[in-house]
Amino acid sequence: MTAEKTNHLPTTKNERVGEVFDLFIKHMKEFLEEAKLNHEEYTNFVNWADRLGKSGELPLYADVFLETHVLQAMYTKLPGTQPSLLGPYYVENAPFVEADENGIIDLPKREDEPGEVLYFSGTVKNTDGEVLAGAEVDYWQNDNSAKYSNFDSDAPDFNLRGRFKTDENGKFTLKTIQAIPYSIPDQGPTGEFLGYMEQHPMRPAHEHIMFKAEGHETLITQVFFEGDEWMETDVAEGVRDELITTLVDKGDYKEASLDFVMRKL
Amino acid sequence: MTAEKTNHLPTTKNERVGEVFDLFIKHMKEFLEEAKLNHEEYTNFVNWADRLGKSGELPLYADVFLETHVLQAMYTKLPGTQPSLLGPYYVENAPFVEADENGIIDLPKREDEPGEVLYFSGTVKNTDGEVLAGAEVDYWQNDNSAKYSNFDSDAPDFNLRGRFKTDENGKFTLKTIQAIPYSIPDQGPTGEFLGYMEQHPMRPAHEHIMFKAEGHETLITQVFFEGDEWMETDVAEGVRDELITTLVDKGDYKEASLDFVMRKL
Repeated sequence: MTAEKTNHLPTTKNERVGEVFDLFIKHMKEFLEEAKLNHEEYTNFVNWADRLGKSGELPLYADVFLETHVLQAMYTKLPGTQPSLLGPYYVENAPFVEADENGIIDLPKREDEPGEVLYFSGTVKNTDGEVLAGAEVDYWQNDNSAKYSNFDSDAPDFNLRGRFKTDENGKFTLKTIQAIPYSIPDQGPTGEFLGYMEQHPMRPAHEHIMFKAEGHETLITQVFFEGDEWMETDVAEGVRDELITTLVDKGDYKEASLDFVMRKL
Repeated sequence: MTAEKTNHLPTTKNERVGEVFDLFIKHMKEFLEEAKLNHEEYTNFVNWADRLGKSGELPLYADVFLETHVLQAMYTKLPGTQPSLLGPYYVENAPFVEADENGIIDLPKREDEPGEVLYFSGTVKNTDGEVLAGAEVDYWQNDNSAKYSNFDSDAPDFNLRGRFKTDENGKFTLKTIQAIPYSIPDQGPTGEFLGYMEQHPMRPAHEHIMFKAEGHETLITQVFFEGDEWMETDVAEGVRDELITTLVDKGDYKEASLDFVMRKL
């Protein structure tokens, strides 16, 4: 009996992986004891997960169905603005945008960008109440066809995406268009799961926003709009009360604002 | 604000999926509370899982690291032979083999099949002690290059795979070659995980065997051989004490046997 030993290990020991995996298995055993999963159900699950993985939808599925629980376990007991999902549509290195002479940041968009014009403003402070001037804001949202640039939209790359700085009062005012409710892709294995759960694929309209400031923990969150029909049943469970703002109708445009509080490191 | 409603749901409600998913999330929250996973760790996990899924290794990973826990949760408190992993190398519809005039079932193999000849015999009974004559046995194993036919071996399809029936005394005797220790594929995302865990990729030598008999629960299990150097540290944790047999050296060949007990439905 000769063993075909394969000693190639492309990575080196990471004790945190071992610690987290052991905890995962401990809780997984408790789950299996309670769920009484049988072997056929296990096989059905693995076949579905294989289709999910091969389709490239695994990050989508994880971000929609798991990420919110990771964030809630981390943050619900902490002060400061609650994070919400990063989601699968973030793109690094969005263009930097300077404020114009009126202090307005005109988010990169097409000349005839469809949608309702929205001025969205915010103030960034920290958990000690200090105003954060010069904090970096990284912002992205969908367009009026409910699509994201750099992914499935026909718009140029980085359309409705931009980075900018808060002013000396920790404030910013962004000229954009109103984001609209969004259906996650539902024609693949993620959609198959939604069907079994009898869960619609909709997310309420939301803005994605990430804040970076020296000495502070990076804050990744989302902004929602009061009255959205999908607020209570968001497929990704990303809504937190404090992340909901109100749209004010100004005739030709709308206005909304929200203040953000970053945690000191 | 117009919603892009997508009402296409390719599947219909399955209450068991909802029930299992709710239990999974309940235990996942407890896991997250204890593991204190941070967002960067979540992102690293999702990126790795995406590579795993796209590589097609997700069933391999699940069968090696999760299946044994599903089986233990189901069976350790029940009478009868303990199941072990089905694993990713089972192929349906292996050829049927009849016993020869001496009652020997010659497993399909090449004329010059490398390896040590092994006569493996067994008896199949049920939990009431009744002999099960005419039970269907489905058998597969690796060859002397540690590879499986229909997968990575050069051998013809269904080499070292076969189906046969137990005789009137519930017995079978199989002429095969000795299976050898096996390295699971370790050059992809599964190997990356093994590296983090500082876990070798080896499984002890094993035979795969599945039993079907009317009025009885299908039994999927494995047979191991005393003295195997990988027995204690099997990467897939598939070994159970009662599944270990002893190789008896008969000069030109080896002999081993094990008895199996099926659960009545």
